[in-house]
This record gives sequence, structure tokens and C-alpha cells, in this order.
Amino acid sequence: MRFLDSGNAHEWAGTFTADGVFLANAHPEPQSGREAIRTAAEKTSAQLAEQGIQRRHWLGMLEVEEREDGSVEAHTYALIINTVQGGKPEVLLSCSCDDVLVREGDGQLRVKHRQVYRDDLPK
Amino acid sequence: MRFLDSGNAHEWAGTFTADGVFLANAHPEPQSGREAIRTAAEKTSAQLAEQGIQRRHWLGMLEVEEREDGSVEAHTYALIINTVQGGKPEVLLSCSCDDVLVREGDGQLRVKHRQVYRDDLPK
Amino acid sequence: MRFLDSGNAHEWAGTFTADGVFLANAHPEPQSGREAIRTAAEKTSAQLAEQGIQRRHWLGMLEVEEREDGSVEAHTYALIINTVQGGKPEVLLSCSCDDVLVREGDGQLRVKHRQVYRDDLPK
Repeated sequence: MRFLDSGNAHEWAGTFTADGVFLANAHPEPQSGREAIRTAAEKTSAQLAEQGIQRRHWLGMLEVEEREDGSVEAHTYALIINTVQGGKPEVLLSCSCDDVLVREGDGQLRVKHRQVYRDDLPK
Repeated sequence: MRFLDSGNAHEWAGTFTADGVFLANAHPEPQSGREAIRTAAEKTSAQLAEQGIQRRHWLGMLEVEEREDGSVEAHTYALIINTVQGGKPEVLLSCSCDDVLVREGDGQLRVKHRQVYRDDLPK
Repeated sequence: MRFLDSGNAHEWAGTFTADGVFLANAHPEPQSGREAIRTAAEKTSAQLAEQGIQRRHWLGMLEVEEREDGSVEAHTYALIINTVQGGKPEVLLSCSCDDVLVREGDGQLRVKHRQVYRDDLPK
């Protein structure tokens, strides 16, 4: 999330597998593949920069489980906090996040599947 | 806390010992025993469901110490965040939490004693 | 941060090396040395106590790296939350924090250099 929060959409997308999927109850369509994920992040980052907003994604309450096939389930709570230059922080969203990660050839764990649920929307 | 936040009062109460005690500076009386803890959690969960609120308990700033007798002291900060369907998240309460956990016959650590202090009330 | 939040400026300053430096984009001048850090913390603690405010510093999203020379870089996000007696919690500030820690003769890691950036101010 540090990559995303610092506007580094390319490196953030690199934390997903090439065929990674990002689903959210806020979006009707999934983002499928690293390119789609990067493009969406770039768009959001540009908007935030234009508005002078520093966004922070806090993940917490981590629960991890290794599965039989070596992949990893990770469950987190997420808070999204916006601070505009000269302003006060705003807790924009409270969410939960369910990830499936796989270890790739270079030894890195990457997100193969991410499902985010905003608490203000039906699950 | 995930059990509590998902409305699973039974499993949440199961994270306490059968004789577990829950004290809070917000309540004049302690909740003594897993049954009392479960009953209180069920009541709160039902109220939140009726109001369409997703509550999240965030624990953080964990400090852990093993004691001579094998029990464990755990100290955390806690944030309680409410999100109503269609609404914005609200940081409802900031608290601190002091736990004593014991390892039971099945190998699980359970809370024998929990003291929660709301920051807005006298300690 | 627990030392600071409980008004224990002396012990908090003891988490820095004697020549520790504390920089913040909110302050024109660095705090140089444990004494200066302690004095500033005491002043803030006294003000908060007078106002009946319980402040909490939450650190999260920790990223740690050991350097060649044995020192440690630690990067965190930080939230500062104020609760006044009888009031609601306020998310006062969202920040990021870059620390360099060194292990001293007594085996303790201490902060040699801390740089805090408030998200609402230019970096």
C-alpha cells in the first residue's frame, strides 16, 4: 500500500501477479490483470495529486493462513485516510480485505486475488 | 475481535476462559464468565444489525510479556469504528486494553481477564 | 509511544540515543539530544494534561530494513488521536515516520534519527 500511497502505481501493480484480479463491492467490474490494476491506480493517483490529497491505506488485524497448495490467504481490516494540504485528516472508508497470495519464481509473494468490501456498501 | 465484528458472539465468547472476566471503566459491573460475556455481545450485535452498522475493533500497539506462571500479559490500544450502511466511518471510541491470557488444555490461549479503559472516561 | 502517551517524557526520551535527533516538517528547528527531546515532550504532556486530553500515537504499516553497519531503518505510518474527557475521539494528524535505530551497549535499540512528516504540510 506504500507504493500506492506514494503515487507509484507501477510498483504497486507489481505486487499483483500478472493475471491478478482486484474485486471490490464498490465496483461492478473486476480489474483483471496487472495492467488494468496499474491503469486504475494511475488514474486515482493523478486525481489525488491534483486535489493535494495525501491518502494513506492502513491495513491491520491481519489473519494469515497457508493453504495446502502453498498459496496464502490473508485477511485484513483497512482504513483509508485522506489529508488535504492544510487540512485535517478524514477517515474516508473502513473496509475489509481478503487476499490470496502465491509465491512466484523470484521468491516474492504476490496477490493473485483481492476482494475488498467497503463497510458502507452491501457485501 | 473479528468474531465480535462479524456478529459471532458465541465464538467471540470462546476466546475467553469459562471463568473469564471482562471489566470496563464504562460499566459499573464486570461481566463474569463466558456466558455473561456472550449474552452481552449478542445484545450489542443485535442492536448494531438493527441499526445497519458494521462495527470494527482495531487493536494495535501490541505489547506482550510472558509471566513466570506461563500466563501472558497483552496490552493494546483499541479503536472502535462504526460505519452505517450508506454513511461515513465514525471513530466512535479510543481505548486501551489490558489482557491476561492463559494457555488451556487444547493449546489455545484464552483471555482470563480483560480490562478496557475508554479514553473519554476517568480511568 | 506508550511512554509519551502516558505522560512519561523521561522514559520516552530514553528510547532515543543521548545524541538522538528529532526532525519534523512541522518544526523549523530539529530537537537535538535526549534532553531537548525530553523537555519538549514534558511541555506537550503538561499542556495535554491541563486540557484533559488523552493522546494516542498509533504506529502501523511498519517496514524494517537492517543496514550494512548494523543500524536499522524503520518506516511507519502514524496516527495521532486525541480524546478529551467526556468527548469524542478526534483524528488529529496523519503522518509518516522514518527512523534510524542503533543497538547500544545494553542491547537496546534506540532512535538515533527520527524524521516525522505531517501529511497536511509540505514534505
